[in-house]
Amino acid sequence: MTDAETTRETTVGELSEGQILRGILDRLPPSTALVGPGDDAAVLAVPDGRVVATTDTLVHGPDFRLAWSSAHDLGFKAAAVNLSDVAAMGARPVALLVALAMPDATPVSFVRGFADGLAAACAELAPGCAVEGGDLTVSDTLTIAVTALGSLDGREPVRRSGARVGDGVYVIGELGQAARGLDVLFRRFTDAEGAPVALTAEARADLSPADAHALSRQLTPHPPIADALRAAAAGATAMMDISDGLALDATRLADASEVTIAFASAALGDDAALALGGGEDHGFLVTFPADAVPLGRRVGTVEARGADAITVDGRAWTGRAGWDPYRDWDAGRG
Amino acid sequence: MTDAETTRETTVGELSEGQILRGILDRLPPSTALVGPGDDAAVLAVPDGRVVATTDTLVHGPDFRLAWSSAHDLGFKAAAVNLSDVAAMGARPVALLVALAMPDATPVSFVRGFADGLAAACAELAPGCAVEGGDLTVSDTLTIAVTALGSLDGREPVRRSGARVGDGVYVIGELGQAARGLDVLFRRFTDAEGAPVALTAEARADLSPADAHALSRQLTPHPPIADALRAAAAGATAMMDISDGLALDATRLADASEVTIAFASAALGDDAALALGGGEDHGFLVTFPADAVPLGRRVGTVEARGADAITVDGRAWTGRAGWDPYRDWDAGRG
Repeated sequence: MTDAETTRETTVGELSEGQILRGILDRLPPSTALVGPGDDAAVLAVPDGRVVATTDTLVHGPDFRLAWSSAHDLGFKAAAVNLSDVAAMGARPVALLVALAMPDATPVSFVRGFADGLAAACAELAPGCAVEGGDLTVSDTLTIAVTALGSLDGREPVRRSGARVGDGVYVIGELGQAARGLDVLFRRFTDAEGAPVALTAEARADLSPADAHALSRQLTPHPPIADALRAAAAGATAMMDISDGLALDATRLADASEVTIAFASAALGDDAALALGGGEDHGFLVTFPADAVPLGRRVGTVEARGADAITVDGRAWTGRAGWDPYRDWDAGRG
Repeated sequence: MTDAETTRETTVGELSEGQILRGILDRLPPSTALVGPGDDAAVLAVPDGRVVATTDTLVHGPDFRLAWSSAHDLGFKAAAVNLSDVAAMGARPVALLVALAMPDATPVSFVRGFADGLAAACAELAPGCAVEGGDLTVSDTLTIAVTALGSLDGREPVRRSGARVGDGVYVIGELGQAARGLDVLFRRFTDAEGAPVALTAEARADLSPADAHALSRQLTPHPPIADALRAAAAGATAMMDISDGLALDATRLADASEVTIAFASAALGDDAALALGGGEDHGFLVTFPADAVPLGRRVGTVEARGADAITVDGRAWTGRAGWDPYRDWDAGRG
């Protein structure tokens, strides 16, 4: 038996926590912390005396299916969605803490792939950010809880509440692709009963380029972190991660800023309804004053608060509002 | 129907994420952050430019049984075990981030009790620390992932690796009580098949004072956070949270410091084996140089590294080494 065949069959239930941890730590980017993994807690430098902190969880079933997401995909996505929230405040991500709760029968190869995905996300999206702590435990339900920490490097945080009447409204990143990718999964990769079927490399190769792109945005979102930091430096008045659909997230920003966001549908691409209603894009919604040099593409204007938090071509938006985990969960797993 | 009867039957599956969140936030201590809950991420002040960060997860089954732990107990414990890790670095806890993954059928009253438990732990153990962010999601398995953040306030972090030959070894907090409490649960509150049975107030009232005390240490650990901060200020050379049993945790500290920790069994109470092997105490293991004014009670001495990481009365320790979640998990729930 080759070494690969031996390790493929090993499960986390057969190893100690320390053995599993060593297999993870070896694959992660080197610590950049003052105190990295291995003590009771990590110690991180945030030179201006302020730390930005956020946490987001991925749960098997509501948030992913193992038939569709590889371990590498899950590591990448768990990091990306948290890095995105840090960057949305205008902060540079400095560290992740990763809690992983796994069934005993989880193959050790899953843990290695997951660690590689975390490492890839840090390297591609937030160089210098590393996994500086975490927790491993047993669970009937595979659960990934990530906390991301960031440094403002002397800038003011860019909040949801800062949009001002007359500002331009911009989007950095793609809209609707992640939702389209989810549709591809449910339409093409389920059986007659709606259960997920495996997303093989061969099946992916058969997809149209547009569907393949949408699928990759769903499985491994690539929030444009560096552009969000540039937007903060360029004088963005408000910014947020677009995670639950542009319409719902813009409503939140409009409510926090006590303004109305007026979208022009022509700026939202061929399918404005998908752009407004689709979730999990993990781009950024940003407002810039008229005298700023903006980033992204303009999709609307900040107006004085009217009857509606958002309008599309001057009318109230009556389409799908966005994603709510307590309404949209499909109880299946797979 | 009274209001209480109506709300008792409401489950989280019937509410939106926003509705559940409002029910939690109203019960938590007021934010002390620069930016508190409600934006993409929180912004916290850590005046000396360093933040201490740790994460720990409680999972239904391996970490708790709902027949034994109330929602309030779980909120308290989830906060306490993380506050403890921050304090073990010598840092003052400033914020918690709380990710809660719950089955749809979870009663809303559970969420309220859980929030009250979080609030009680902050108030009792770390005044000024508040829940500054979090995440709610659906899961088949009730899972609580907490991240705690702390400020060193200009002090150096107290690491595991700082123990020096000749230092005194001290314990702050009780030893073995949490393990004794777990034994009470498995001995007195299981049925013939070993399944948990409900821990009622009446049944608790029937326990001996010693068993009742041990049970409360198991269900709601009270790490002496303030004393850990005093120990750091008093010149502790090394410190760690005692979470996996004194013998195992002391082995980790001895290995990190490249020393041997020599315990005197007479200093470990009536049941030295329980004190050394029991888990979940959440007290602190601390080393002080001879010229410091120590806190806690002395249990041993730091010696030059010998054949064993720890000794008891000069001999190798051959008893139970401590708690490993991948070895000690009992797959039952209840």
